[in-house]
Amino acid sequence: MNVADYMQTLGQQARAASRAMARASTNDKNRALLAIADEISNSRDTLRAANAEDMARGAENGLDAALLDRLELTDARIDTMIEGLQQVAALPDPVGEITDMKYRPSGIQIGKMRVPLGVIGIIYESRPNVTIEAASLCLKSGNAAILRGGSEAIASNKALAECITTALKAVGLPEACVQVVETTDREAVGQLITMPEYVDVIVPRGGKGLIERISRDARVAVIKHLDGICHVYIDREADRSKAINIAINSKTHRYGTCNTMETLLVHAGIAGTILPELADAYEQLGVELRGCDKARDIVSDMVAATEADWHEEYLAPILAVKIVEDMDEAIDHINTYGSHHTDSIISENYTLARQFLTEVDSSSVMVNASTRFADGFEYGLGAEIGISTDKIHARGPVGLDGLTSQKYVVLGNGEVRK
Amino acid sequence: MNVADYMQTLGQQARAASRAMARASTNDKNRALLAIADEISNSRDTLRAANAEDMARGAENGLDAALLDRLELTDARIDTMIEGLQQVAALPDPVGEITDMKYRPSGIQIGKMRVPLGVIGIIYESRPNVTIEAASLCLKSGNAAILRGGSEAIASNKALAECITTALKAVGLPEACVQVVETTDREAVGQLITMPEYVDVIVPRGGKGLIERISRDARVAVIKHLDGICHVYIDREADRSKAINIAINSKTHRYGTCNTMETLLVHAGIAGTILPELADAYEQLGVELRGCDKARDIVSDMVAATEADWHEEYLAPILAVKIVEDMDEAIDHINTYGSHHTDSIISENYTLARQFLTEVDSSSVMVNASTRFADGFEYGLGAEIGISTDKIHARGPVGLDGLTSQKYVVLGNGEVRK
Repeated sequence: MNVADYMQTLGQQARAASRAMARASTNDKNRALLAIADEISNSRDTLRAANAEDMARGAENGLDAALLDRLELTDARIDTMIEGLQQVAALPDPVGEITDMKYRPSGIQIGKMRVPLGVIGIIYESRPNVTIEAASLCLKSGNAAILRGGSEAIASNKALAECITTALKAVGLPEACVQVVETTDREAVGQLITMPEYVDVIVPRGGKGLIERISRDARVAVIKHLDGICHVYIDREADRSKAINIAINSKTHRYGTCNTMETLLVHAGIAGTILPELADAYEQLGVELRGCDKARDIVSDMVAATEADWHEEYLAPILAVKIVEDMDEAIDHINTYGSHHTDSIISENYTLARQFLTEVDSSSVMVNASTRFADGFEYGLGAEIGISTDKIHARGPVGLDGLTSQKYVVLGNGEVRK
Repeated sequence: MNVADYMQTLGQQARAASRAMARASTNDKNRALLAIADEISNSRDTLRAANAEDMARGAENGLDAALLDRLELTDARIDTMIEGLQQVAALPDPVGEITDMKYRPSGIQIGKMRVPLGVIGIIYESRPNVTIEAASLCLKSGNAAILRGGSEAIASNKALAECITTALKAVGLPEACVQVVETTDREAVGQLITMPEYVDVIVPRGGKGLIERISRDARVAVIKHLDGICHVYIDREADRSKAINIAINSKTHRYGTCNTMETLLVHAGIAGTILPELADAYEQLGVELRGCDKARDIVSDMVAATEADWHEEYLAPILAVKIVEDMDEAIDHINTYGSHHTDSIISENYTLARQFLTEVDSSSVMVNASTRFADGFEYGLGAEIGISTDKIHARGPVGLDGLTSQKYVVLGNGEVRK
């Protein structure tokens, strides 16, 4: 079968399965999640063997150490997948929730019911654990999933697909509600993102290049997360110790995450007293600072920042630093150079805090908190399939609710329109 | 200036204006709406003169009577535009609403704030009153709007744009928050739907062909409404009088609207007793019936329905009729042939009603109510910019909330991630 036909078949099967999934009871969905967990637990040897195949091929093909690390299914990662499945099973079922029921003057009663989106296509890199994360969230939210992982992980993903299929069969849910694309042909992605008749939304997880390419070519809605250029703005009226703790934590808690601060903005009225202390702390932690001219007047051994630095998602121990004359300049900078991901103000001033919350155009806007909190678990969503920097449909961490939609329900007693 | 440059300029101006609009107070937005209403009221002569120009050109170019009717700005239509502006001014401001604030174990408090989408592009046919409807909803929801009406209405739309600009200037809001595209070049649409840097969402209003074309070519999210193939299903346990009233009202209240019933489904167990009475009522109202074989066994003078009839949005006094053996067959038919718009069951059976609500995959699902209720005003949204048959972002009637998004707000007291 050629790739186009193969993907069409997956699409048709997913569409059919999505109808059954939308009706599936909470209990059946949870039983399936726990059955997948058991199946994985009982298949450790098979999974490790399949993964070893991928690792060997990867090493042969010269994958770098970071890629190989992400590709590996260690025992700890298998445990994490099992725990993840159990956690998603324990989350409340979003499907069927009815809200905002109210009577209208015509006599009808109207509200909204939460329903699955239908079929979700997930495109991700060579991290086999994403296969299980994505499958569990789609399953719990009553959607059918088509999963396309990186080609380097194909053996691992096929072995995981086997566990999923066995579990679904045992529980009596349609096997096609989770399908793993079992070809490494790149054309499969091109097909997946241009089948609006079978796929309702695409969630790409990977590098900026991949996501831009998918967004450009997709004929289906895309829930996308491009990059995380997050800011902390230390206001003149900041509490000194909160400012230092949050500026350090936002940058150094983890360097490689999208909610890590990449640019620090400091009010000119407090920079002279707070920046030297912060610079010392960053130096001890091995963070390189790249500052504007005014910042370098205060801390002379900073590298000079260029225009490119304000646009940069370093994902590394590097931090851009800029002195601003007032909060308006900070907000302008964030809305211009940021990626609408997560930005935090440190201030004790009520009016400025309120204005910052209103005017910063980002998916998460914070007062006196570390940008590192922008995360599905920290927000209480239970789990996330990604963090959306879009404004349409889902914004910020996308949990189970982000994989659903709401339809109107109208309850009447024979009412007709006058 | 060529069309591409012209549209880029409109886009840049809209993006800049959208920042100011997002900050605009409820009071300023309402003052602007009322000022536009006053300006229109004071410009009746100018508006009528501009419209007469369009009407003369339209007649010369051989526009048909229906198009000319929609193009005309009668005094009554001008009054309706003024009332519409006043109604939108009276609606609650959706922007800034904060919901779901709760504390997390880390100490942070998290919730959602409703914010404008940014820049909305509206593409519509030659109905000048849509210019004011669209402008008012975008303005109230804090968005900047770029309006592209049909070329036949260009003089009317320019005159209305003049009223809007004068009013915005008087109130002190940026003039570019509502811009009317003042070229009839078709390339303007192509540009508008492919400027994701300046336009956040496109709302096309018009025929199915236009909307399909825009959805296919857009590089920006589209809130779309394709067609309205709505169903009423009369269950075996239907209350006879509710069934007859709703079946008649859903079809005959207005023929040309998207929430009009196009196919009637009747349970085989009640068809023999209810269909003859319904057929008589429809005949008196001049509605042509096209039935399946079983329906024609009961009412012999029906035209035979073909497969094409189940797919048809007649927008006319024609109704397809099908007998089904049970509700599952009805739901299958609706999910297969319908357009996911609005569908209603008539039944006194609690379990069946609940199942119908859950399993029918449409933007509005009803029990014992006329499909004609699927409407922004009837649902209490105040006004609507369209009815979305999509699942992403907005579904069903799209009011002010549908033109907004929600961002996360996090309030802390110095919390950092452990």
